[in-house]
Amino acid sequence: MSSLYGSIEAGGTKFVLAVGDDDLNIIQRITIPTRTPAETIEEVIGFFKDYSLKGIGLGSFGPADIAKESATYGYITNTPKANWNMYDIVGNLERALHVPIHFTTDVNAACYGEYVKGHAQGTKSCVYFTVGTGVGAGAINAGEFIQGFSHPEMGHMIVRQHDSDTYEGNCPFHKNCLEGLAAGPTIAGRLGINGEKIEENNPVWDYLADYLSQAAYNTTLLLSPQVIIFGGGVMNQPNLLKKIKARFKEQMNAYVATPDLDAYILQPGLKDNAGTIGCLALAKKHFD
Amino acid sequence: MSSLYGSIEAGGTKFVLAVGDDDLNIIQRITIPTRTPAETIEEVIGFFKDYSLKGIGLGSFGPADIAKESATYGYITNTPKANWNMYDIVGNLERALHVPIHFTTDVNAACYGEYVKGHAQGTKSCVYFTVGTGVGAGAINAGEFIQGFSHPEMGHMIVRQHDSDTYEGNCPFHKNCLEGLAAGPTIAGRLGINGEKIEENNPVWDYLADYLSQAAYNTTLLLSPQVIIFGGGVMNQPNLLKKIKARFKEQMNAYVATPDLDAYILQPGLKDNAGTIGCLALAKKHFD
Repeated sequence: MSSLYGSIEAGGTKFVLAVGDDDLNIIQRITIPTRTPAETIEEVIGFFKDYSLKGIGLGSFGPADIAKESATYGYITNTPKANWNMYDIVGNLERALHVPIHFTTDVNAACYGEYVKGHAQGTKSCVYFTVGTGVGAGAINAGEFIQGFSHPEMGHMIVRQHDSDTYEGNCPFHKNCLEGLAAGPTIAGRLGINGEKIEENNPVWDYLADYLSQAAYNTTLLLSPQVIIFGGGVMNQPNLLKKIKARFKEQMNAYVATPDLDAYILQPGLKDNAGTIGCLALAKKHFD
Repeated sequence: MSSLYGSIEAGGTKFVLAVGDDDLNIIQRITIPTRTPAETIEEVIGFFKDYSLKGIGLGSFGPADIAKESATYGYITNTPKANWNMYDIVGNLERALHVPIHFTTDVNAACYGEYVKGHAQGTKSCVYFTVGTGVGAGAINAGEFIQGFSHPEMGHMIVRQHDSDTYEGNCPFHKNCLEGLAAGPTIAGRLGINGEKIEENNPVWDYLADYLSQAAYNTTLLLSPQVIIFGGGVMNQPNLLKKIKARFKEQMNAYVATPDLDAYILQPGLKDNAGTIGCLALAKKHFD
């Protein structure tokens, strides 16, 4: 009989909980709203209590302290989200469930999912961007997460303002960094309505494509990954990926011979399951 | 008796050749001008022929194919440098010297030197920028070089033009990328005279500091390294490092809690020996 592993995708608005097997097949999966830590963690415990798990992979919203040697390892740290500031999510779950937990960021988990079973399968390096309420990214090099004094914060990289885009940006730290110009809320910030309601030929999509292609360009030059994946709700806009690739090609100007763009800049192969499968795979890797 | 290792720093204008011991002490070191491959390689062979070496570390100017699985592994590829285009430097040296050669980029070699014996010693991740005729960088994460479909090309990352800098940039591929605005030749491009002759209070140093601080900022957000090192001739300008750190602090706006800047953004601990010691260390690591 296959061993079982748990997956927790801890997001600011919802938690996705799942149990999977050795082949990373998802056996059960539920979504619960994120409430207070006490309420939410009780629901998490309730979900997992009938399973005998070898371990749980936990991909969390941030900022999260994932440095094992840190005094606050396993904490969600200085988040503005009520009640979750400096919350020891790993400690609380381990004490209640008596199962080892492997802790990483939500974007690292999704990146790892694509690495083991999605479009980056068979590579040694990849980068996964999520473009939604914010912009974040996880990255793998030589089979290891990119991580030094902390985890990457690629959403705040420097981009150049598009000539026709007069939006000043909404990042509270840097105004017009990547996230401040390309995250989902910037669409309503410019036009007063959400992305789903905006036509395909609205120039806002050209602006976002330009900023996201700059992200792919800088990622290529700094990391030389074998695959770059763009996920998240904003990427559901038809043609956005195509626009990103076209603009990337112009900007690169053939300086670096990247892999063929159709195999280099992609949407997630696992669709919405990248994070869940990544968490299961991390649990399996660490506790097998 | 200690084993001996060889080091070759292959540059576009000079080659630095050295022999070192198990403790990475440099026993002999010479510099020769870069002429045609045939002439230069003959001199290299002459230098090493009296030593019994366990291996040689070779850090090369680029573009260099350092991907072991590639058909042109060990080649200097599409360089504009006369006679060196598609030159099989590793194959030619191995056939003449009968010693295994570990091939990497010049900046990877310098990065590795700082990693084993310089300011990044004891860390697991660091980035080494060289700012000279061009701008290049090598990087290490979790003890492994950052390398995917190729090696990084950080010198061409996107930066924002400084408000007061009217120089259009000199990169043949991207005009005003990092290298196009911050490499040594851009100083003469702006002012008609070289950097050594320009006073400390000339605004050109503020421009360069701004661009190099953007490089450090993006590097921090994409890689989160434990140390960032700036070497190369342009960094000999007094106060340039200080200006970079001051501007970095402004740009970061406390978003990411980096290590203390005096231990985070540094000039090479090994000074001009970073590349040589890195090549010796790579030879020792791979052929011990």
